[in-house]
Amino acid sequence: MNARTASDLKISALDEVAMAATRRRQAQLTKPAGSLGRLEELSIQLAGITGQAMPSVSQKAVVVMAGDHGVTAEGVSAYPSEVTGQMVLNFLHGGAAINVLARQIGARVVVVDMGVGADLEPNPNLMDRKIAFGTANMAGGPAMTPGQAESALRTGIELAKELVADGVQIIGTGEMGIGNTTAASAVTAALTGAAPARVVGRGTGVDDEGLARKVTVVERSLAVNRPDPEDPMDVLAKVGGYEIAGLTGLILGGAAGGIPVVIDGFITGAAALLAGRLEPAAVNYMIASHQSVEIGHKVILEDLGLEPLLKLELRLGEGTGAALAMTLVEAACRTLAEMATFGDAGVTDRQ
Amino acid sequence: MNARTASDLKISALDEVAMAATRRRQAQLTKPAGSLGRLEELSIQLAGITGQAMPSVSQKAVVVMAGDHGVTAEGVSAYPSEVTGQMVLNFLHGGAAINVLARQIGARVVVVDMGVGADLEPNPNLMDRKIAFGTANMAGGPAMTPGQAESALRTGIELAKELVADGVQIIGTGEMGIGNTTAASAVTAALTGAAPARVVGRGTGVDDEGLARKVTVVERSLAVNRPDPEDPMDVLAKVGGYEIAGLTGLILGGAAGGIPVVIDGFITGAAALLAGRLEPAAVNYMIASHQSVEIGHKVILEDLGLEPLLKLELRLGEGTGAALAMTLVEAACRTLAEMATFGDAGVTDRQ
Repeated sequence: MNARTASDLKISALDEVAMAATRRRQAQLTKPAGSLGRLEELSIQLAGITGQAMPSVSQKAVVVMAGDHGVTAEGVSAYPSEVTGQMVLNFLHGGAAINVLARQIGARVVVVDMGVGADLEPNPNLMDRKIAFGTANMAGGPAMTPGQAESALRTGIELAKELVADGVQIIGTGEMGIGNTTAASAVTAALTGAAPARVVGRGTGVDDEGLARKVTVVERSLAVNRPDPEDPMDVLAKVGGYEIAGLTGLILGGAAGGIPVVIDGFITGAAALLAGRLEPAAVNYMIASHQSVEIGHKVILEDLGLEPLLKLELRLGEGTGAALAMTLVEAACRTLAEMATFGDAGVTDRQ
Repeated sequence: MNARTASDLKISALDEVAMAATRRRQAQLTKPAGSLGRLEELSIQLAGITGQAMPSVSQKAVVVMAGDHGVTAEGVSAYPSEVTGQMVLNFLHGGAAINVLARQIGARVVVVDMGVGADLEPNPNLMDRKIAFGTANMAGGPAMTPGQAESALRTGIELAKELVADGVQIIGTGEMGIGNTTAASAVTAALTGAAPARVVGRGTGVDDEGLARKVTVVERSLAVNRPDPEDPMDVLAKVGGYEIAGLTGLILGGAAGGIPVVIDGFITGAAALLAGRLEPAAVNYMIASHQSVEIGHKVILEDLGLEPLLKLELRLGEGTGAALAMTLVEAACRTLAEMATFGDAGVTDRQ
């Protein structure tokens, strides 16, 4: 990240004092030590993130960023680009999967137009942060200019700040963008060095021919643009997308704001990878919600050293996996805060 | 199961008409077909179980059955038997992990004394179904008489009927009983033919010496009692426990009542194994919530052909994994019922 962006991003190390206090409390709760497994680990991570020995994540938001991709001209998706804007309207009307899952857990859905190709009508529930009407076709040149990528990143950072100021205690990441598994594949290949064939999946459901074409398109995009793997902003601008850039900023901003950020699937995973390359300390603030069917997602999670909470064969995006996992994160906080201790309950501890 | 018990247990095959209707609706919802993965599969299973194309699981109960085990005299647990009764009081006071997790999802907790060693004071929230003050030590002879096992099984069946009549739409299984991983190990070894060393784990946390002792105790219990692997009631009586018998009945009763039953960890898994041997059709009504740290649980799930929804390194029991997974089951129902269709939302379906 250049000096301009980095200057106002301070991501702290995890709070060891809070984590130690949480570990002590976990040992006093009425259960065999460690028996809540990953919920206990989560509670300790959350203590480190928030600096609170008894963290809360009751104020939840899922941020769904939308953008279109010029690379769809290459025939890489089973759906036409117009679906991006149509699905944004579906989010605004509450009819998409993420709306249903967010309602179930009491999270609000924040819908952001980062770069949808259609001209969307103003709506009080839509945040208009459009940088452009979709990216340029990365198979022929850079998807974005460096300035556009920087603007989109900064938009995400600022939005995270606003949400934290508004009392949000946990952010789930979500996205919508026909063509964005192709961009996420290119970002992943560029940053990890994995061959495109190892990170390209079927997205919304292309057939074998479409899959082969998608691999070729990613290979060509990398050959044409030659993104520098040591320069995450170069990778982002050349083969990323507006929603991916916004999400990268959102993750960094959440980390800087001292709250946990739940990563959804492959596209938000690519944003997490970029965020981790830009600011390695941000990885401590990430919670991997699930492992997607998209093969590139596994490459990302292994690179980041994150173990997903769920493996449910999801491949929808929108933040659906993040919403499902937020229930587990909340369970980690609630058991920590609400369970009785051996002393309180008059239960004999181990012999 | 003998004729007496089987006579009032009719477990239907899954409703193929309802399942087909649910499959059709899943294909119309605004998402790529199949992209909600296991949530879609769950919604179809639930349709088959309930006979409703749009099933609901909003009325939820977690049933926690408690019992003591004479085999604790052999030094197989890290905690003394008195903890069983103490934890029952903790359940009644709302301080245990299962209380916290049930509150989070809006489920009620039904606490049942099936065979606790202590004399528990009457409490409006405690169902007194005590068959005896703990089992006999199975390392020296049968844990229960055939009549006791039958009574405990029938108690579980009747309780499931009552819950279904009361409007409960999904049952989560839970248990408490110091020593019950030893009994569950013996049941699993007897029914599957697996060697005790392959199914005995650390339970609440015994050390290496305790683990070796536990294996020997299970081997001795099987050698002394010679349970007939073809006769599940014989296995249950000789090396089971009161809560395991009650849970076996609960699972059968839930299936007979046409509602899904969420299996928790290793002990409720042993009950599920018994239920599946007694009535193979019951397996269709089971949902495996998670895979426990206890090694024998994997043997059980593979035997039943169930794929767990969660792998969170849990080893607490009480129904905690079941409660966590019930959120996913509810998510499956809600997305099915509440998502917009392509037609309703004006979203273009795939090209």
